[in-house]
This record gives sequence, C-alpha cells and structure tokens, in this order.
Amino acid sequence: METLPISLAQIREAHARIKPFIHHTPVLTSESINTIAGCEVFFKCENFQKVGAFKARGGLNAVLSIPEEQRKKGVVTHSSGNHAQAMALAARDSGCNAYIVMPNTAPEVKKKAVAGYGAQITFCEPTQEARESNAARIMEETGATFVSPYNDYKVIEGQATATIEFLEEQTDLDFLMVPVGGGGLLAGTALAAHYLKPELQVYAGEPEGAQDAFLSMQKGEVVRIDKPNTIADGLLTTVGDKNFPIIQQLVKGVLVVNDQEIIEAMRLIWERMKIIIEPSCAVPFAALLKNREKFAGKKVGIILSGGNVDLAKLPF
Amino acid sequence: METLPISLAQIREAHARIKPFIHHTPVLTSESINTIAGCEVFFKCENFQKVGAFKARGGLNAVLSIPEEQRKKGVVTHSSGNHAQAMALAARDSGCNAYIVMPNTAPEVKKKAVAGYGAQITFCEPTQEARESNAARIMEETGATFVSPYNDYKVIEGQATATIEFLEEQTDLDFLMVPVGGGGLLAGTALAAHYLKPELQVYAGEPEGAQDAFLSMQKGEVVRIDKPNTIADGLLTTVGDKNFPIIQQLVKGVLVVNDQEIIEAMRLIWERMKIIIEPSCAVPFAALLKNREKFAGKKVGIILSGGNVDLAKLPF
Repeated sequence: METLPISLAQIREAHARIKPFIHHTPVLTSESINTIAGCEVFFKCENFQKVGAFKARGGLNAVLSIPEEQRKKGVVTHSSGNHAQAMALAARDSGCNAYIVMPNTAPEVKKKAVAGYGAQITFCEPTQEARESNAARIMEETGATFVSPYNDYKVIEGQATATIEFLEEQTDLDFLMVPVGGGGLLAGTALAAHYLKPELQVYAGEPEGAQDAFLSMQKGEVVRIDKPNTIADGLLTTVGDKNFPIIQQLVKGVLVVNDQEIIEAMRLIWERMKIIIEPSCAVPFAALLKNREKFAGKKVGIILSGGNVDLAKLPF
Repeated sequence: METLPISLAQIREAHARIKPFIHHTPVLTSESINTIAGCEVFFKCENFQKVGAFKARGGLNAVLSIPEEQRKKGVVTHSSGNHAQAMALAARDSGCNAYIVMPNTAPEVKKKAVAGYGAQITFCEPTQEARESNAARIMEETGATFVSPYNDYKVIEGQATATIEFLEEQTDLDFLMVPVGGGGLLAGTALAAHYLKPELQVYAGEPEGAQDAFLSMQKGEVVRIDKPNTIADGLLTTVGDKNFPIIQQLVKGVLVVNDQEIIEAMRLIWERMKIIIEPSCAVPFAALLKNREKFAGKKVGIILSGGNVDLAKLPF
C-alpha cells in the first residue's frame, strides 16, 4: 500500500481547528426508509452544516491553516456553488477578506448568500478560462491565497472530519457512502474510515452524466468527461489529481445512477425524512436503492452532503 | 392556583412508557435564523418524530395506557390528519387493531400512510356528525376504546414528554413556544415547563382564521369559531375542555398571526434550516417574528410540531 498523504493525527487536528466554527450535525434514521431500502440507513446531516453543506469543513480548515501573516492578505477562489459560500464564511470567521470569482450567470440566491458573508465578488464570463484568469489577477493584485474546492490536502482533511463525528456516534456501520464530484468528500471519508475502522466499506454514488470517477477507477487514471450533464449540479467536476490516488487506494467502488433515480431518491428523503437535500446529495441513497442486494440487512451510513436547492425550481 | 390534573411523575411515567417507540428528536439552531429573529432560537424537531409529528407521543401514551384486556379489542378515532397516523402506529406497536374513521375527501397520501401502518380505515362523508356516528358504531361493534386527538389527559401527558427532552438538552431557555389547535401540545408543554422550570414563559402561536384559543383566553371560557379557515390545517380544531383550564392557568399568552405571515415563516425555515415543516408548524416562529421586541436577545425554544405536507401543493 502506498503511503497516504494525510494522517489520522492531521484529520484530528483539522477537527479541533474547525470545531468552534461548525455545527456538530445530527445523525437521523427513518423506519420507513429502512423498510424501503431493505437495510438500516444512518444519515449524517451535513445539509444542516453551516452554509448548508459539508464544504464549510474543508473551507474552514484550508483558510485557518494558512499562516496568519499570509492569511491577512485574503483568500481567493472561483466557484458558483457551496465552496464559494464556505470560503466566504471561513474568511469572515478568521477575519480576512474573501475574493470570490463567480460566473455572471450564477443564480441570484447564491450571489446573495456569498455577499451575505461579506465576501468581495468579481463577476466574469461563465467559462473556465475567465474564472481562472480573474482569480490569477486577484492573487497578483492582493497576494491572496488560492484555495481549490477539492484538490487540496487541507480541504480533504476538513471533509474527513464529518466521518470522525459519524463513526464516533455510530460505531457499528458496515458501509459508508458519499457522492463524488471533485472527490474532496470521498477522499476525506475514505481516509478517516480507513484509520478508524479499516473493515468499513466505502462506496461513492456518481451521476451517469458525470461518471468520471467511475471511469477513472476502471482505467486506473483520471478520465475526463467532455460535457458532463446531470441534475446533480454539485458533481459536474472531474476528480482531482490529489484526490484520485486516495480514492483508488481506499474506496471499494463507485456506483452510477441516472437523473431519474436521483430525483426519486431525493423525493423519498424529502417525504420520509422531512429534510431538504439537493440533487447531488441524493446520489448515494439512489445508488443504495439501485443496488439493494449488496446492502441487504446491513448497516449503511450515508453522509448527506448539502441542502442548497432553489425552492421555486423543484424537480418534482 | 387550582390543582393541576397531571403530575410531573405522570409525565415521566409517560416518557418511560413511550420511549422505546419514539425518536429522541434533535434540537437544531441556525445562525442566520438568529440574525433574522434578533434572538437565539432553539428548534426541537418533532417534524422528525415517528409519523412526522409530535402526535406519535400522545397517541402512543394513550394506547399503551389502556389495560391490556381492553386494548386487545382495539382503538378507534376519527381524524384525517397526524393523529390518525399516530393511532395507527401506536396500535401496531402495541399489537392491537386501529379503526380509523376518515372523511372520503382526505388526501390520498394520508389514506396511504394510515393504511401503511396496518390500520382499518372506514370512509365517511366529510361532516363531524358522520365521523362521530361512524366511530360510535365501531366502538359498539368491536368494543374498541375511543382516543381523542387532544381532549384526553393521557394524550396531554404524552405531548408533554417533548418538553422533558427539550429542557434536559437546553437548560437555559427564557421562552417556550408551540402552536395551538385543540391544545394537547400546548397544555402538555405548559405542564412540563411549569414543573421543570417555573420561570420559563410559555407562549402559543395561533392562526388568525382559527383564533379560538386567543379569544377563549380573553373571555375566560372556551369560545368556538364558526367557520375556521387557515392554511394551518392542523390547527382548525377548538381548544378542548380538558386542555383549556391547564392553558388558562399556565400559558403566558396566545400570539395571533395571519396566513401570509405563516407562509413566510415556513419558507424561511425551509430555506435556512433545510428542514420540511407543515404550515401549522410554522405558526410559533411566525408569532416570534411578528413580536420581535418581546423576545429580543433572549433564548427561545420552539417545538416544531410536524412536517407532513404535500410536496406537490406548496404555498410558495
């Protein structure tokens, strides 16, 4: 086994570092969900986390880990999603500026949320090139530090802390499932599970229209999807080159589901659990329902990744 | 002060009785909700309770308190709402039959939910007379015991157990708020608060279109509203004659809100807390927002009463 780039001690340090700023999210269960799934499911509710997603953990750990002198110059990222909010929150809580590059096409509600944390937003054309060049310019002008949404060991450490809490509260899980986009949550989850409970099997759920992690696992190297397209808008990104080797080494498998299966799983959780999750967040549960025989009668933990959804545009 | 009809010991016994069958629901908080409200709000999430509402507590306590020989003959109630599901669950968990009289106009989803717990449903015309005569006939035919949704000391005891849990977890509340319909939750909450923390001020929220509790408190006797009408469909009932004297003695006040205020409060909780609550459940938070100065800077507990809402018919 290759040497892993993050130790258990580092994950525990990350947890201590971010604990004053995050919610210790609850683990919820539902008898009717268990009946439908044919196994016992435990949901770690990161949709209740600060900014409505697990991203607060990684963002806070990355920002708080920057040496103070450097941090004073601010932090920068480009994102239209939960990572933008996470960075804005982290910057506010650690008393530095956040410079967020957002495509001018980003939904109004997300612009407002980021601005609400006091971040400085730069709008740009909705292309990868425009996002990157704007971020680069801001770094040059301000000396701010760039933080990637997932391809960063400090971010991965932060995401791993959800599993520390989860396995302390629920000690007898057989499986642990999360969604995979860039792979920050998946790599962090797999690392924490490996250290705390090596026999625990970690699986990812991935949307069919953005199945780069599934294909990458098959091929043994990072595979890019040309035009990813799925309702799970948080999972469009390609798995990062820091994330992939960890995933390859520690994750048991990637289970693929289509958009219809994602929507059905999302609706089931809304109706039976009375909680709001976004489409990306429903992907692991959809994967569980699609592969019932694999999990039959077992104890399955699922990290619910986020709950930021436009209530005026529900898919059901 | 008049003698209260329920003691702390009885509430604690009720809690021990139903504990194996209910969820210990979490208390959630939200920084953005606190900012909006201008005080610290703690939400006890009974929308996550079995059957999606606090009603499971009262239903279970009432059914489990019936002597076993009698209970074998079954239990009966008329309801189209959360109490019907609570009775069906309680009967199933205690191994007896539940006979539920439902108006034939009840939503399909509620019929299904009640049937899903194995209850025997009798459909009738949607009038109070038809509901009562059908329930009476079933009692005569089967010997089953009738359980009222709220006007029953065992139901009130059961509802009081939510406050036992709440005040154990959150010891420093200044205010405690719940909605009022028939008054089971309000009477139970006020009793438990009175015994555990006499200085805690208990307030109810009530919809303007069904403000019988507000008017009853003013007049000093139960006042009926002719045609109650509100989006808070769980709060249409008149406060019970067993509930009212307890409420009159122990509740500090009833705060009235209109349907628009209820919908806005409901939406805020969905968006900021990422949890699903039904309109009735949003009433105390709407009352808090309408009376900000009363609660400014204080610690306010709110029991979120339920989350059973038709996702295809959202008011926003």
